[in-house]
Amino acid sequence: MAKALVLEEARSLSLRDIDLADDLGAEDVRIAIDTVGICGSDVHYYTHGKIGPFVVNAPMVLGHEASGVVSEIGPEVTGLTVGDRVCMEPGIPNTRSKASKLGVYNVDPSVRFWATPPVHGCLTPSVVHPAAFTFKLPDHVSFAEGAMVEPFAIGMQAAARARIKPGDVALVTGAGPIGIMVALAALAGGCAKVYIADLVEDKLAVAARYDNIEPILIPRDDAASVLRDATEGWGADVVFECAGAAASIRTALEAVAPAGCVVWVGMPVDPVPVDIVLAQSKEIRMETVFRYANMYDRAIALIASGKVDLKPLISETFAFADSIAAFDRAVEARPTDVKIQIKLEHA
Amino acid sequence: MAKALVLEEARSLSLRDIDLADDLGAEDVRIAIDTVGICGSDVHYYTHGKIGPFVVNAPMVLGHEASGVVSEIGPEVTGLTVGDRVCMEPGIPNTRSKASKLGVYNVDPSVRFWATPPVHGCLTPSVVHPAAFTFKLPDHVSFAEGAMVEPFAIGMQAAARARIKPGDVALVTGAGPIGIMVALAALAGGCAKVYIADLVEDKLAVAARYDNIEPILIPRDDAASVLRDATEGWGADVVFECAGAAASIRTALEAVAPAGCVVWVGMPVDPVPVDIVLAQSKEIRMETVFRYANMYDRAIALIASGKVDLKPLISETFAFADSIAAFDRAVEARPTDVKIQIKLEHA
Amino acid sequence: MAKALVLEEARSLSLRDIDLADDLGAEDVRIAIDTVGICGSDVHYYTHGKIGPFVVNAPMVLGHEASGVVSEIGPEVTGLTVGDRVCMEPGIPNTRSKASKLGVYNVDPSVRFWATPPVHGCLTPSVVHPAAFTFKLPDHVSFAEGAMVEPFAIGMQAAARARIKPGDVALVTGAGPIGIMVALAALAGGCAKVYIADLVEDKLAVAARYDNIEPILIPRDDAASVLRDATEGWGADVVFECAGAAASIRTALEAVAPAGCVVWVGMPVDPVPVDIVLAQSKEIRMETVFRYANMYDRAIALIASGKVDLKPLISETFAFADSIAAFDRAVEARPTDVKIQIKLEHA
Amino acid sequence: MAKALVLEEARSLSLRDIDLADDLGAEDVRIAIDTVGICGSDVHYYTHGKIGPFVVNAPMVLGHEASGVVSEIGPEVTGLTVGDRVCMEPGIPNTRSKASKLGVYNVDPSVRFWATPPVHGCLTPSVVHPAAFTFKLPDHVSFAEGAMVEPFAIGMQAAARARIKPGDVALVTGAGPIGIMVALAALAGGCAKVYIADLVEDKLAVAARYDNIEPILIPRDDAASVLRDATEGWGADVVFECAGAAASIRTALEAVAPAGCVVWVGMPVDPVPVDIVLAQSKEIRMETVFRYANMYDRAIALIASGKVDLKPLISETFAFADSIAAFDRAVEARPTDVKIQIKLEHA
Repeated sequence: MAKALVLEEARSLSLRDIDLADDLGAEDVRIAIDTVGICGSDVHYYTHGKIGPFVVNAPMVLGHEASGVVSEIGPEVTGLTVGDRVCMEPGIPNTRSKASKLGVYNVDPSVRFWATPPVHGCLTPSVVHPAAFTFKLPDHVSFAEGAMVEPFAIGMQAAARARIKPGDVALVTGAGPIGIMVALAALAGGCAKVYIADLVEDKLAVAARYDNIEPILIPRDDAASVLRDATEGWGADVVFECAGAAASIRTALEAVAPAGCVVWVGMPVDPVPVDIVLAQSKEIRMETVFRYANMYDRAIALIASGKVDLKPLISETFAFADSIAAFDRAVEARPTDVKIQIKLEHA
Repeated sequence: MAKALVLEEARSLSLRDIDLADDLGAEDVRIAIDTVGICGSDVHYYTHGKIGPFVVNAPMVLGHEASGVVSEIGPEVTGLTVGDRVCMEPGIPNTRSKASKLGVYNVDPSVRFWATPPVHGCLTPSVVHPAAFTFKLPDHVSFAEGAMVEPFAIGMQAAARARIKPGDVALVTGAGPIGIMVALAALAGGCAKVYIADLVEDKLAVAARYDNIEPILIPRDDAASVLRDATEGWGADVVFECAGAAASIRTALEAVAPAGCVVWVGMPVDPVPVDIVLAQSKEIRMETVFRYANMYDRAIALIASGKVDLKPLISETFAFADSIAAFDRAVEARPTDVKIQIKLEHA
Repeated sequence: MAKALVLEEARSLSLRDIDLADDLGAEDVRIAIDTVGICGSDVHYYTHGKIGPFVVNAPMVLGHEASGVVSEIGPEVTGLTVGDRVCMEPGIPNTRSKASKLGVYNVDPSVRFWATPPVHGCLTPSVVHPAAFTFKLPDHVSFAEGAMVEPFAIGMQAAARARIKPGDVALVTGAGPIGIMVALAALAGGCAKVYIADLVEDKLAVAARYDNIEPILIPRDDAASVLRDATEGWGADVVFECAGAAASIRTALEAVAPAGCVVWVGMPVDPVPVDIVLAQSKEIRMETVFRYANMYDRAIALIASGKVDLKPLISETFAFADSIAAFDRAVEARPTDVKIQIKLEHA
Repeated sequence: MAKALVLEEARSLSLRDIDLADDLGAEDVRIAIDTVGICGSDVHYYTHGKIGPFVVNAPMVLGHEASGVVSEIGPEVTGLTVGDRVCMEPGIPNTRSKASKLGVYNVDPSVRFWATPPVHGCLTPSVVHPAAFTFKLPDHVSFAEGAMVEPFAIGMQAAARARIKPGDVALVTGAGPIGIMVALAALAGGCAKVYIADLVEDKLAVAARYDNIEPILIPRDDAASVLRDATEGWGADVVFECAGAAASIRTALEAVAPAGCVVWVGMPVDPVPVDIVLAQSKEIRMETVFRYANMYDRAIALIASGKVDLKPLISETFAFADSIAAFDRAVEARPTDVKIQIKLEHA
């Protein structure tokens, strides 16, 4: 039995004892959790009890953005040792599946992902995890930053799939947490300049604190026009669509340059009209993103080097005992909030 | 003054004399036209007088799929000589534009394309064309085949953008002329097997005469299911959507494998609902196609080698004097017709 | 104890009983071996007792190109069942290594590969193998062809790494077994034409039996000149260097086109002078090949479709009882021999 | 007649009047030169009178790294106007060649490149240049920086061809001017960290002034070992070989990670032994670089954004009247000198 933040059903959270499997396999490590960030999906399960086909039918521990300290290692583990400060990739694929053999284990249909029903999350003091999906944090990278690696990895996946060329100009539509992560990854990944468009000035203000991220307040300004003006009429080399709205999907196709790339990151609830002929007239490439694969070590390297600074995005930190308050704060969705984290205490 | 097949306005064709520019530039060649194929776009201008933003406001010579014989060369032409049997890329870009410098001259906004208003086409005995966009035909490739290079180049562009890996399994939705061209290019370009889906059995029968093209008659059979069954549940490595219909666009996303590729070739008249979340859940790549660039020499090489046989797709050939009858036959759109050609006679 | 073809030490083979591990793991299958091809590496271990750093210090069963029938399956195996006709990928990586997670399990340093010391091969009636590296053969693909998948997969890997574009013209230097496999994979993978160069006319004759493989007898003809003549002076889009000799390495760089690709397949014993400035002057890409990853299903698909016919390359088949004679025949290295196979009999 | 810095023959420079073609074509601009950097190739022509096959057989104006102000435009020029501050790409290809149509105009054999015999360079007050290869400088980018775009573009080409993934760790061998340019482009292009190795401490000190460039002094430290230690044994994702020496070529292959990339930037005088089997054992990709194509606008974007600061690399600036002294200083090759520039004065 362990204490954990349990989603009993939609709109009902308890911080209570629950029975969790904790057998340590030969290639596993046990981790004392230090910090857990709250993701939009955690919030959505809390408020709606489901995301698409994933329905919370039984009490489920929340949380999947985590860092901590290795407290025990399985007999076949190499490369990790007790006391290592780490963060964890929350999805565990079958590494022998066809998708995994191809290097795209994120699209393995049998992935088990923390806090995706029926799999428990990590908002509990101790978890067991495969060493292969556990990554060391350099000394000067804090636990709080370590718990930011997960959302940043999504930005990294988007940047990697875009195949940015050095000096590209990018547009990000949507200045929410994911949009900002994508913008930072795109800049670190080679863009000269990243424009970011949103309807909410406070969100843009958070993003615009970073060098070379230029805010576009819509509808006051038209993102496609801004990009054309900034590029002698050519358009954005890459557009990262992170809002998932019909209007921004249209903007993405208008703003992108000939032979450019649109990365679909935002997840519209329903099928959205897409102007395929407009896309064809510029012969663009479109990429999609599903979580991430092979991004944790790269994300950590960029954070450790100082090229990416995620600390300003941690808006507030709650104690584990106040986890429900932390979730209620996340539900508020204040425009200036990017990430709410929960810090666990170990005696 | 030269005789030409002139579209006076929608639904009105004349075979008559017309004044056409025919100055031979230093890097140009003059070509005695031998064969011209009729494209769906020619037919559409004939029946509707416009395609999207391109409106026939003045009499325009039709035709852009052509082969012929070089009859004169400009003073700076190298690599071509009088008497060479050739075919011609119908779009002439500004080779100093940004798009052209990048190697994607097909998306140069200043391209002048035969039989796209206000540019005249080539259904006339003699044309002037840049040597750089004129390609020699090997002796054993006929003029009829030479005039098929243009539509086949579209298939080649689709196959190239898909980045086929040797042994891929593909699905083509739509067994019209372009669907068949794409299927042949995909097979020649490395696919082990190409499935092709259509509602019309006669069209499928034309395609299925080729080895390794497998017909799927819809709605009797479901294309996504057929592909899953053929691939141990994995799906099509590549889907070439060539029908431009809402149903086939849905099918494309259902049939494609995780980490696979959908190439949008068909041109739906209006924006079409696309299930972006479905695309993301498999993290697919989507490519679009706009005509072609750098495909003529490759297309000719595959035809010359015998790996691609386009001759069975030439359904009927009309004399130049019967050009209007040829167009009326094309308007019929018989399901067994793939390509109608017009043969010019030179004294 | 099982009967097996055992290499006792250099130049000493026995067909004798030997103790082999045969525990069936949860994700393993047991396979009754039907056919095993003899590879150049098997022959080299036989004649020299080592290959580079891999030294035969203890008796080792030879053979790694195999097909057979599943005779037992582990409790967690899905997708395979007793009686399935299969072939096997002989290298078993740690699927949780960094290389494997990236999709390049072939360069995982911990790969265990059949008949590479100290790992036993498969020239024995029954083997245990992970289901994930065991592939079903379609009914109409013979066991003999199934045992050819392994060497053909090397050709596939070379073709895949070249990133052939449809209609490419390729040169293969060296018409030995691997050169021929590469040529067939390159043709199936999208090349219009493959030229193959060798010093030995009999080897070229075997290759030239295939359509669109054109022999170049050196030094009578110069491969780089032949390619220039065939491509209006441009050169080969791809060169697959399969001879591993200083002269052919020079030829590869001379024959390749600007912006083309050279794939280094042949393995020269020592470092070889490479004219880096010549490579730079055309800004070519160079790829290397190490065995293969994710190629078995693609190779089988191409064989099953009839696009690749490996049957003419099976030069002679010996009974298991005559295995030593089979190896002595392979040692002869007759120029007309491509593949010698051994067929096992099951009561 | 115009004043120019003329290389009369090896070791003989004059600042004198010379007859230079200056017809302004319809798509050309005339540029008043402001700043010209001295390149290693300029120096080599000065000291040796030739580079490989390029021999100075007649007096030739030196200089190809230039910025200036547009003073006149041809009648068909768009996008540039009199008074624009610009820098110029010194190679002029035939934009209708096969290489140019493919987007790789840098490997067009007919390129005419400033200060490459028999083509005059730009160390003269006024030059005529195609508008398509002339690029506007933002107001806050100085002429001195504008004249640095040319050498930086080589670094950009290397970074682009490496296809850096965000967060890669790179090694640059050789801390000369090109090595430093490559290191800066690699960092701006997505690397988390760039190690740079050289024998000369003073050169390393210049490079190490930049964040995230880590010096390796050889032979005191072994570059391959340093990279392994920095990457948990994996190796460098990308190695840029910029020294052109046999030892560093060996180091490149030792330091690169499995499935990594080596970019051959340095130009060894003679063919150098390359351990192809070592390259194969990691299945690496090798890229080569020849000048650059389509890099000027990207280079300017990165300089303008502040992501790349080239100003500290301008070691000293000479007046046009002191051009010969400038060249003699460049011949000295002081280890702390990166770039010597010449500034022209206009009345």
